[in-house]
Amino acid sequence: MVFPFSAIVGQDEMKLAILIAAVDPGVGGVLVFGDRGTGKSTAVRALAALLPKMRAVIGCAYHCAPDASGAACEHCAAQKQEGKARRTALVPVPVVDLPLGATEDRVVGALDLERALSQGVKAFEPGLLARANRGFLYIDEVNLLEDHLVDLLIDVASSGENVLEREGLSVRHPARFVLVGSGNPEEGELRPQLLDRFGLSVEVTTPRELAARVEVIKRRDAFDHDPAAFLRKWAPEEARVRRRIVDGRARIGQVSVSDAVLECAARLCISLGTDGLRGELTLIRAARAMAALEGDEAVAISHLRRVAPSALRHRLRRNPLDETGSTVRVGKAVEELLGL
Amino acid sequence: MVFPFSAIVGQDEMKLAILIAAVDPGVGGVLVFGDRGTGKSTAVRALAALLPKMRAVIGCAYHCAPDASGAACEHCAAQKQEGKARRTALVPVPVVDLPLGATEDRVVGALDLERALSQGVKAFEPGLLARANRGFLYIDEVNLLEDHLVDLLIDVASSGENVLEREGLSVRHPARFVLVGSGNPEEGELRPQLLDRFGLSVEVTTPRELAARVEVIKRRDAFDHDPAAFLRKWAPEEARVRRRIVDGRARIGQVSVSDAVLECAARLCISLGTDGLRGELTLIRAARAMAALEGDEAVAISHLRRVAPSALRHRLRRNPLDETGSTVRVGKAVEELLGL
Amino acid sequence: MVFPFSAIVGQDEMKLAILIAAVDPGVGGVLVFGDRGTGKSTAVRALAALLPKMRAVIGCAYHCAPDASGAACEHCAAQKQEGKARRTALVPVPVVDLPLGATEDRVVGALDLERALSQGVKAFEPGLLARANRGFLYIDEVNLLEDHLVDLLIDVASSGENVLEREGLSVRHPARFVLVGSGNPEEGELRPQLLDRFGLSVEVTTPRELAARVEVIKRRDAFDHDPAAFLRKWAPEEARVRRRIVDGRARIGQVSVSDAVLECAARLCISLGTDGLRGELTLIRAARAMAALEGDEAVAISHLRRVAPSALRHRLRRNPLDETGSTVRVGKAVEELLGL
Amino acid sequence: MVFPFSAIVGQDEMKLAILIAAVDPGVGGVLVFGDRGTGKSTAVRALAALLPKMRAVIGCAYHCAPDASGAACEHCAAQKQEGKARRTALVPVPVVDLPLGATEDRVVGALDLERALSQGVKAFEPGLLARANRGFLYIDEVNLLEDHLVDLLIDVASSGENVLEREGLSVRHPARFVLVGSGNPEEGELRPQLLDRFGLSVEVTTPRELAARVEVIKRRDAFDHDPAAFLRKWAPEEARVRRRIVDGRARIGQVSVSDAVLECAARLCISLGTDGLRGELTLIRAARAMAALEGDEAVAISHLRRVAPSALRHRLRRNPLDETGSTVRVGKAVEELLGL
Amino acid sequence: MVFPFSAIVGQDEMKLAILIAAVDPGVGGVLVFGDRGTGKSTAVRALAALLPKMRAVIGCAYHCAPDASGAACEHCAAQKQEGKARRTALVPVPVVDLPLGATEDRVVGALDLERALSQGVKAFEPGLLARANRGFLYIDEVNLLEDHLVDLLIDVASSGENVLEREGLSVRHPARFVLVGSGNPEEGELRPQLLDRFGLSVEVTTPRELAARVEVIKRRDAFDHDPAAFLRKWAPEEARVRRRIVDGRARIGQVSVSDAVLECAARLCISLGTDGLRGELTLIRAARAMAALEGDEAVAISHLRRVAPSALRHRLRRNPLDETGSTVRVGKAVEELLGL
Amino acid sequence: MVFPFSAIVGQDEMKLAILIAAVDPGVGGVLVFGDRGTGKSTAVRALAALLPKMRAVIGCAYHCAPDASGAACEHCAAQKQEGKARRTALVPVPVVDLPLGATEDRVVGALDLERALSQGVKAFEPGLLARANRGFLYIDEVNLLEDHLVDLLIDVASSGENVLEREGLSVRHPARFVLVGSGNPEEGELRPQLLDRFGLSVEVTTPRELAARVEVIKRRDAFDHDPAAFLRKWAPEEARVRRRIVDGRARIGQVSVSDAVLECAARLCISLGTDGLRGELTLIRAARAMAALEGDEAVAISHLRRVAPSALRHRLRRNPLDETGSTVRVGKAVEELLGL
Repeated sequence: MVFPFSAIVGQDEMKLAILIAAVDPGVGGVLVFGDRGTGKSTAVRALAALLPKMRAVIGCAYHCAPDASGAACEHCAAQKQEGKARRTALVPVPVVDLPLGATEDRVVGALDLERALSQGVKAFEPGLLARANRGFLYIDEVNLLEDHLVDLLIDVASSGENVLEREGLSVRHPARFVLVGSGNPEEGELRPQLLDRFGLSVEVTTPRELAARVEVIKRRDAFDHDPAAFLRKWAPEEARVRRRIVDGRARIGQVSVSDAVLECAARLCISLGTDGLRGELTLIRAARAMAALEGDEAVAISHLRRVAPSALRHRLRRNPLDETGSTVRVGKAVEELLGL
Repeated sequence: MVFPFSAIVGQDEMKLAILIAAVDPGVGGVLVFGDRGTGKSTAVRALAALLPKMRAVIGCAYHCAPDASGAACEHCAAQKQEGKARRTALVPVPVVDLPLGATEDRVVGALDLERALSQGVKAFEPGLLARANRGFLYIDEVNLLEDHLVDLLIDVASSGENVLEREGLSVRHPARFVLVGSGNPEEGELRPQLLDRFGLSVEVTTPRELAARVEVIKRRDAFDHDPAAFLRKWAPEEARVRRRIVDGRARIGQVSVSDAVLECAARLCISLGTDGLRGELTLIRAARAMAALEGDEAVAISHLRRVAPSALRHRLRRNPLDETGSTVRVGKAVEELLGL
Repeated sequence: MVFPFSAIVGQDEMKLAILIAAVDPGVGGVLVFGDRGTGKSTAVRALAALLPKMRAVIGCAYHCAPDASGAACEHCAAQKQEGKARRTALVPVPVVDLPLGATEDRVVGALDLERALSQGVKAFEPGLLARANRGFLYIDEVNLLEDHLVDLLIDVASSGENVLEREGLSVRHPARFVLVGSGNPEEGELRPQLLDRFGLSVEVTTPRELAARVEVIKRRDAFDHDPAAFLRKWAPEEARVRRRIVDGRARIGQVSVSDAVLECAARLCISLGTDGLRGELTLIRAARAMAALEGDEAVAISHLRRVAPSALRHRLRRNPLDETGSTVRVGKAVEELLGL
Repeated sequence: MVFPFSAIVGQDEMKLAILIAAVDPGVGGVLVFGDRGTGKSTAVRALAALLPKMRAVIGCAYHCAPDASGAACEHCAAQKQEGKARRTALVPVPVVDLPLGATEDRVVGALDLERALSQGVKAFEPGLLARANRGFLYIDEVNLLEDHLVDLLIDVASSGENVLEREGLSVRHPARFVLVGSGNPEEGELRPQLLDRFGLSVEVTTPRELAARVEVIKRRDAFDHDPAAFLRKWAPEEARVRRRIVDGRARIGQVSVSDAVLECAARLCISLGTDGLRGELTLIRAARAMAALEGDEAVAISHLRRVAPSALRHRLRRNPLDETGSTVRVGKAVEELLGL
Repeated sequence: MVFPFSAIVGQDEMKLAILIAAVDPGVGGVLVFGDRGTGKSTAVRALAALLPKMRAVIGCAYHCAPDASGAACEHCAAQKQEGKARRTALVPVPVVDLPLGATEDRVVGALDLERALSQGVKAFEPGLLARANRGFLYIDEVNLLEDHLVDLLIDVASSGENVLEREGLSVRHPARFVLVGSGNPEEGELRPQLLDRFGLSVEVTTPRELAARVEVIKRRDAFDHDPAAFLRKWAPEEARVRRRIVDGRARIGQVSVSDAVLECAARLCISLGTDGLRGELTLIRAARAMAALEGDEAVAISHLRRVAPSALRHRLRRNPLDETGSTVRVGKAVEELLGL
Repeated sequence: MVFPFSAIVGQDEMKLAILIAAVDPGVGGVLVFGDRGTGKSTAVRALAALLPKMRAVIGCAYHCAPDASGAACEHCAAQKQEGKARRTALVPVPVVDLPLGATEDRVVGALDLERALSQGVKAFEPGLLARANRGFLYIDEVNLLEDHLVDLLIDVASSGENVLEREGLSVRHPARFVLVGSGNPEEGELRPQLLDRFGLSVEVTTPRELAARVEVIKRRDAFDHDPAAFLRKWAPEEARVRRRIVDGRARIGQVSVSDAVLECAARLCISLGTDGLRGELTLIRAARAMAALEGDEAVAISHLRRVAPSALRHRLRRNPLDETGSTVRVGKAVEELLGL
């Protein structure tokens, strides 16, 4: 039994970023940076319990959607083309841990040695990337991940496919997932290539107010003492959040973006000097998910304002003449250009 | 035959921390830092002899508890669900050494090559993590442990499970244990991630008083000369300590914590500026175990005071303007906020 | 469905260099350096959709041209010599990704282990180099590629053959392709040997004008919303570019180069102090392709002027007394010697 | 034929330390540091010839003692428990070389591949640690030993057991030995963990007096010329030393230690500031062996005085304000506290 | 079709050194250092086309000469001794590329795994060294070659044999070849041991004159446009050079060297302070080949003068007080001692 | 055919050291340091041709002497003990090259994989150490040898045995040889442990006199031109040197050493401050061989004087206050103590 998402005290920016990614996985992953012991892992595990189930083909190792077109695995795609009916079921959205010491084999999958030896068949044994398809891949201490795994993740994250060609195996399967990474920047920086892959980034800190801290301990204590009772108590709140996600997903396709809003986004990025155009693309996309979450029909400046720090803070260049932190710089630019 | 726990001269903080972990394994491991030759290993081995036996399923490689629910291995869980009666026995609580040069195979377990070759079966040969389940895992010179083993231990310690997927093996078994590490900080620092995993930390030093040192030599000499006689002499004292542990375990569920105590804990951590909230969570948990050990029904400020140094000293940030050691800084804050 | 080449906003130098390589693959590869998120990968993927199909032998792993003489694989060459008729088909020009973490096996091909074990045959399983034959090999972050792969690529790129001799395999197959690399020079320099292999190099930057940036977001948004409609809208423009490539290829053999133009090229390189003679050789070759693309019958000074920055900028020596960037230095020399 | 122990010229401290370890192996190993070519290896090889034979079970790879209780191997322990009579023989005490380049397999033992392949049995092929059981393990240039072997030796030396678990083997056998290491501190320092494992340390230097040096050459020359005659000449002296060892072993259990002597030992260690308590424990143990060697019934201050440098010199902390060498510092403290 | 040797513009010293090595392979290899893109590789490939064919035993993997005595492979040597007649053929002199990334297996040869597995035979699969026997081994970027390959080449180059003993193989075959290396000294220095193996060294630079550069482009352009016509045009010149080589080889055995010339050579080397005596040995040998190439019957001072820079420039010690380059220093000494 | 030993021009110290080692292999190896191209390798190869043949058991892989007692291989020792007659033959003394890149397998020998696989037998395939038994092991560039091979050689050189225990093999065979190493100290220092293993060290330099250099070239030229004639010319001189070796070996057992000479040797070493006593032991041994070579019956001061530089020069400590080279320092001490 896991601690409920809605019972997490504070950490609003992190929770919002996670909800945005739950509504529009295409926003591109969430990076959570900050102190240890501030509930990063708890939030990710809580998300797994919160998400509405998804419909998947029974027996498919990649839990393909029944109506998947481009993103289905070879087997499912073939069956669909032949018009075969397939049995499906509602399954939990996968939230998969990628532990730091994981071998490449475990991540990308490997030859099933037993079947190779006993039956002489080259069978593929899917790895963590297969398991994370259509869900979330969580990497704690992402800044400490080995370089070759980082390369691999960058490659898969950008193509949405896991391609494995070795030992005579030639496998290609869908691997679309929201990357959620957490880490402490004091212990190692992220390589810029990986940083750039994350759509949103948030900073979490230890709460400074006594009341909040006591509340954290009390809730944790109550949960540890009688988890079932605690979950029952928080069930209505959990249901409310789940409903917001479901509604947001249904609504997002209809949310409109005006030229004025587009210009505001571009102006903000120009003013901040972000590299390339991923800044405004993400900003617009996150703002649209935000609007959907809040039940609005069009993206407003206020939505931009809310998501700008998460969408842009990790895309600034270091300015040697301005030692102000990224969050402050984004804040100032937002204030100047979008008002308070 | 091992030297009895209660015959160890001095080193009260270390002994207390070990007893707290024995009463509440959830407090999260004990780190012992200090000079060589001060009885760290002796204390851990002594603990093994001291602990009351535990009931375990006969033939289970993970010595599952008969009534284990979530933490049982797959085989035991299946049998329980089928309602099968299982034979059990009282067995010693495992206290397992993880030597520095241990290979990953030895730690996490590996494919049983013989059976694989002779019988063509993929059998799992459990490793040290399996053996340590429900007990203690001791790492001498923990600060010299190789990085990949540290990663692995962090992963297992936080999940309570050992997950092994390679060479076609796919094994998942419970691996809940109290991590006890010892080391000399002069010979290499602990990585912050591992440091943070330890609930309690204690510092041991060579005793400075002549009488204590002579007493150490005499007891050791007496033990070396006639171990059986020495153990007989210390048996009553050992029984007394064992009883404290058993009683403490029985009582801990009923120990209450008042809001005032919670606030004191939070205030102390705010004042010390510990990262995240693991400081107060551990502090409360250790204080509750302390109260249980002493037969008290509620956690008092005096309990906080006793365990605060062990619970907090390794969670302080380096303050470049205040070169005072961690122990002194915790002591001052305790004095200011909790009184003497 | 991929974003159309002609819908890419701005980035004219990059697009021109790619078109030149499409018209004359012998010009020697294109290196794209610059900010992240400026559409480098998009352009390469778009190229794949744009290129006219090529005729290839059906069933040949290297998709040999039916009339290939020197550059055919051993099997095709043998069949041709025996005068056997072979079935051919029009196939897309391959545009192959070489991901950073690719193993050498995957790049050069390897023994087909399954057939080796099951049938006792030494069969070759072609790799990415085989797949890229007669097409494009794209390496994102080429400056981060491992040294041994760089060595290998240099070797293959210069010989046009992939020679594999190990594990008892002895394979030799054609591997002629246009190398397209992209990277950010701030994150690691290219080894001079590899730099020198690229015929053309271009620099891309984030557009600075608001209108361009808004246009990029709008087109991307339109494409994301309804890709099919977007492609339909841009189809005429795509067809126009495809026609220019086809015409350019047909015309290039007849484009003449006067001695005056040759002297201008040599004078420019002498003035810039480029190492060796690859500078002028590439300059002439690119200018000829440029003329062919534009439908001209002879190379003019104006063609030299257009392609000189791409052909020469990566061939300058660092001049410690002149900190001006390469692009500016080439520009000045062009202006002085070729006029504005 | 080896050069006789008693014919070694000078080097009294080294010879005494070796004799102490021969009388009480529990004193914990001897470290010999100093110039090359001063007879360190010669002394160790001579010891092998000098030691009285020991009684061992015939056919046991670990040459278990017939009456071994705790320290017997599994096979011998089982046989003893079943009350089976076992044939024994007098065998030389093993003095085993551990060469610098030794693989881990050779040191700890390994799977017997031949029997594994031909008979399908997992048989263990004992290594150097097995061979050294109940004897001496000699490491020349111990300061140049690879780290992973050092780790391994520390582990085995402290537990007295060699535990091997890999490749499906699971072996545990006794490995109690006196570690004798030699080295030149100028060529690499010993890791403190290994240094601490040695009970005694001695420094040897090239003799400075002409007569001694000529005597060394003469004896070596005589030995080289006619080894048999040389050994005959030194046989009585060898027998005398062997008798001292045998008598010392018989007598050591009865040697008493007064409280005054214990206090002197503790005072000396406090004054020198040795880490932990291994200093006084070794000091007392070595002094008792010294007394036994000399036929005394109680440990006297004079015995402490003789062994203090060997027992303590390698346990001092570097004192940056006192550049005096360890030997001199121990000497001064002995003089002050124990008199001349 | 390769660019003809005689159509290379300029680079006279390089072409002469290659011709000398073609006339007397015993002169010991040619090292070409200098800018990229100056035709180094072109010259080596051109040489392959230029060299007169050689007579070799058909079916011999080392293309042994029919009359080879010491330098024949084991098989050929055995057959010759048995007086068996062997069929021979005229074959091209091998000019073999050793690519930077070549594995040791590929260079020295390896066990033929397929035959080992299928037929249980230990068959040897010859490598690049076998293929280069009696010919040329070309290493581009020789200064970047991995150390272990450098060691291996030094060993083979000095013994003229490739000895392979591993995996139960024990092969020894002739491997006499002229080592031709090229590289850019700015990108990594050659290890002195390998430098010393080269008999001759030449420096090539980018031509500075406009006419030469335009001529290079024109010839290259003509060759690219219609290679067959270009080769026809240059065929007479190629034949002339081939004739010089053939005549030189026939004549070299009769070229005499006077004492005066020997003294001049020694004086020159003493004056330059070259290490060892390889300087004068190579100087004499190269001068003799030079004389043979020019049709002279005796070595004259003028021959010494021509070859001295190539033979000595890489054998000078760095003189910290004289920063003049090696070429200049050799030139001055030649001028002083041999006149202009 | 190799260049004759006696035709080497100059280099008297090197030739003398080699002759001393040929007369008394127990003197412990020769180290030749100096410029490249001064005939070091030539001298070693010449030695192989010069040495009188030795009698060895036919079919023994270690070419054991028929009368070998301790140093015979296990097979020969067994046969001798059983009193079996063995066929013997005169064979050349082995002079074995150890190339820099040699694998450990090739040096120490390895499992014969073919026989292991085909016949299921664990057969040993002897390595270079086996081949060098009773002869010479030559290592060119000994200072560049890999550390693990250096360790291995030190171990074997000191024990006279090669012990191989791995892969289920357990082999022990005699490996007594004279180590001859050469190298250039400017390219890497020898580890002191290996330096110390060499009995004698000599420095060779390029000759400075014109006549000598011309003579070298002439002799080399004559040899290259007609090797058979050259060898015939030098045969009498070769026979003379061979006779000196044979006579020296016969005589050395009777050469006496007076106390006065011993004292001189010790005084010299004390004065030079050599580490340990290997200095005087080698000095006496080399002087005795020198006397034997010259036909003298007792070692005289003049013999000491001749061999002192070779025996001591590599045993001096660096004296920071006296920058004089080792050779000069030994020379001065010899002059002072032994006269001119």
